[in-house]
Amino acid sequence: MAAEIVNQKDGLEESVIDPAFALHRGGKMAVQATVPVRDKDDLSLAYTPGVAKVCSAIADQPELVDDYTWKSQVVAVVTDGSAVLGLGDIGPEASLPVMEGKAILFKQFGGVDAVPLALATKDADDIVETVARLAPSFGGVNLEDISAPRCFEIEARLKERLDIPVFHDDQHGTAIVTLAALRNAAKLNGRGLGELRAVISGAGAAGVAIARILVEAGIGDVAVCDRKGVVSRDRDDLTEVKRELAGFTNKAARTGSLGSALEGADVFIGVSGGTVPEEAVATMAEGCFIFAMANPNPEIHPDVAAKYASVFATGRSDYPNQINNVLAFPGVFAGALQVRATDITEGMKLAAAEALAAVVADELSADRVIPSPFDDRVAPAVTAAVAAAARAEGVARR
Amino acid sequence: MAAEIVNQKDGLEESVIDPAFALHRGGKMAVQATVPVRDKDDLSLAYTPGVAKVCSAIADQPELVDDYTWKSQVVAVVTDGSAVLGLGDIGPEASLPVMEGKAILFKQFGGVDAVPLALATKDADDIVETVARLAPSFGGVNLEDISAPRCFEIEARLKERLDIPVFHDDQHGTAIVTLAALRNAAKLNGRGLGELRAVISGAGAAGVAIARILVEAGIGDVAVCDRKGVVSRDRDDLTEVKRELAGFTNKAARTGSLGSALEGADVFIGVSGGTVPEEAVATMAEGCFIFAMANPNPEIHPDVAAKYASVFATGRSDYPNQINNVLAFPGVFAGALQVRATDITEGMKLAAAEALAAVVADELSADRVIPSPFDDRVAPAVTAAVAAAARAEGVARR
Repeated sequence: MAAEIVNQKDGLEESVIDPAFALHRGGKMAVQATVPVRDKDDLSLAYTPGVAKVCSAIADQPELVDDYTWKSQVVAVVTDGSAVLGLGDIGPEASLPVMEGKAILFKQFGGVDAVPLALATKDADDIVETVARLAPSFGGVNLEDISAPRCFEIEARLKERLDIPVFHDDQHGTAIVTLAALRNAAKLNGRGLGELRAVISGAGAAGVAIARILVEAGIGDVAVCDRKGVVSRDRDDLTEVKRELAGFTNKAARTGSLGSALEGADVFIGVSGGTVPEEAVATMAEGCFIFAMANPNPEIHPDVAAKYASVFATGRSDYPNQINNVLAFPGVFAGALQVRATDITEGMKLAAAEALAAVVADELSADRVIPSPFDDRVAPAVTAAVAAAARAEGVARR
Repeated sequence: MAAEIVNQKDGLEESVIDPAFALHRGGKMAVQATVPVRDKDDLSLAYTPGVAKVCSAIADQPELVDDYTWKSQVVAVVTDGSAVLGLGDIGPEASLPVMEGKAILFKQFGGVDAVPLALATKDADDIVETVARLAPSFGGVNLEDISAPRCFEIEARLKERLDIPVFHDDQHGTAIVTLAALRNAAKLNGRGLGELRAVISGAGAAGVAIARILVEAGIGDVAVCDRKGVVSRDRDDLTEVKRELAGFTNKAARTGSLGSALEGADVFIGVSGGTVPEEAVATMAEGCFIFAMANPNPEIHPDVAAKYASVFATGRSDYPNQINNVLAFPGVFAGALQVRATDITEGMKLAAAEALAAVVADELSADRVIPSPFDDRVAPAVTAAVAAAARAEGVARR
């Protein structure tokens, strides 16, 4: 079962023994009818002539599309295959296994239907136009694995243009779960968010979104580092997104390397890959929190982190405290769709993080600042919080 | 259960008592995972890190996308909502109940997954570009309820551009089933197709495609009538599609009205709506075949047809001989996808019609020239015939 021939190069058959291939054969998802189509009577209701009355009713009252089709329960998982996992720009076809995986996680964890749409274009204008044209068929859009900086522009333009929720999970899913873990780490150690100084390694999709949500949540200060060091106002090599980032981070106006930023820092958040040398980790504040989320190799090795950190989190499932987006996106969309939200606002993201943190608030330990992805309290809690926040923020349609 | 409030106009609540609304509440379809996602081990195979190896393999060998994702078993059902049933241009949202219905028929009858995509554009260029960008995610494209003449151009351009099957069902599904019924009507009455003269009322999507397939199948002659009468080479008011039609139909170079064309004709095929007066029907050849397929009102009333026709078919499920596209499209796509065809050729359509006719070849009667939509021999027969034809025509990839 586990052996499948997947490579035939230069006439050479390479038999790859990996259960992942056997599992993926034929794909991971299917469509199913939720109404019977067994006989003429069924067909005359679900299809012609009965369906015509439903179509006419929607033509008269467009909002009925949410009641009488699957639109309000289905999310488009849209990618261009340009930043897939750690694999980079592998193209739309090769990204499909990830998008299907995402789709079945939506269903399993949030009860949300999702359809993978990997696009044969990397042009931001084309992606925006394509998604906008598809919008009548979907209740929401999850952007996935689109490389920075295009991901920022594409999301912003679609949010502006569409009246359904648009959410780039690599940004906001990661940010929500990171904030939730940080809230609990602080709580466990009797610290207030306002007294913490964080350093984020990586100014891509995740780094930018984490910086934003931490600032919104009231963190003391945050410095974001790219390959050239701290993103600061005095740099003249910044993209538009990084200039904006410099505007609301780095109150202390630090400059210089990641290493210098880490001196005395309370929090390290790694979303970059690369390795932080132990000498730099050793300069962090006592009892610091280290979230080294690069996969498969955390930026700070667990053995090193153990020497200095009071709380250690990674992106891996084989260590405690896994920062896993599946803790956020199913509930975020389930909540947004439940109230037919027209947007996913910053307030909804903050509410998702709070609700996620609250799930384990009474069970906190250094190895448990965030719930397991399989904790079945998570999705209902996030869903309810996001739905309530959507109402409070005036973006709910019911 | 059957009562739902669907109209609130001018402050007036109209309670619509119709079981179709109850059935449609929440939509008619869902997505399901076909692999387990119950625990950490499942997740590490279906999602990260296991999925990365599958993605990498596809990046190296693009054709593996067909083996390791659902691409090769899922069809996009694409519309712009411009010609929905008899309702006309009701827009993308209002067309969704029909597209969902189509999707569940694909699944029920052909075992083919299908996703409704109703587009917020009616521009032919935009539709072509959008579908082309979506192509990496789908094994085939079923165009649906797109008005003529754009439907011809859109299909032709997409067929040219894409290496997956593209099929406008309103054209070819109808044509395949019509030809199958006509084959059997001829066989039942000891007539050869070559000795039959047919008149088609309607030069839209269905009329044009039926004319083409009848000529390919060897019909004696066919005249297509639009609102101005027979489409003939001497008319100077023809669109490009109708000029082309005039080039391969109407060998007898008839001109004039539908009524004059019907004089002595062996076959009437109605895909236009409207009513043909009994006086015109009375002039047809003895023992003629009448396929009056407009819904809900056939162009020739059943009582009138009974006086003159040896075989009568309609588009309705409450009369014998229902010309229903569901007899064709599920098997056509199932067969094309089975062999990973790069196109649906004319030969594949002809093979589908022959296979469909053959299902009831030994049970023929005037009330049974075409199988019931619920005859479970149909889809396997059409699937096998289409797959074999794809191989014979050199468009199969396996």
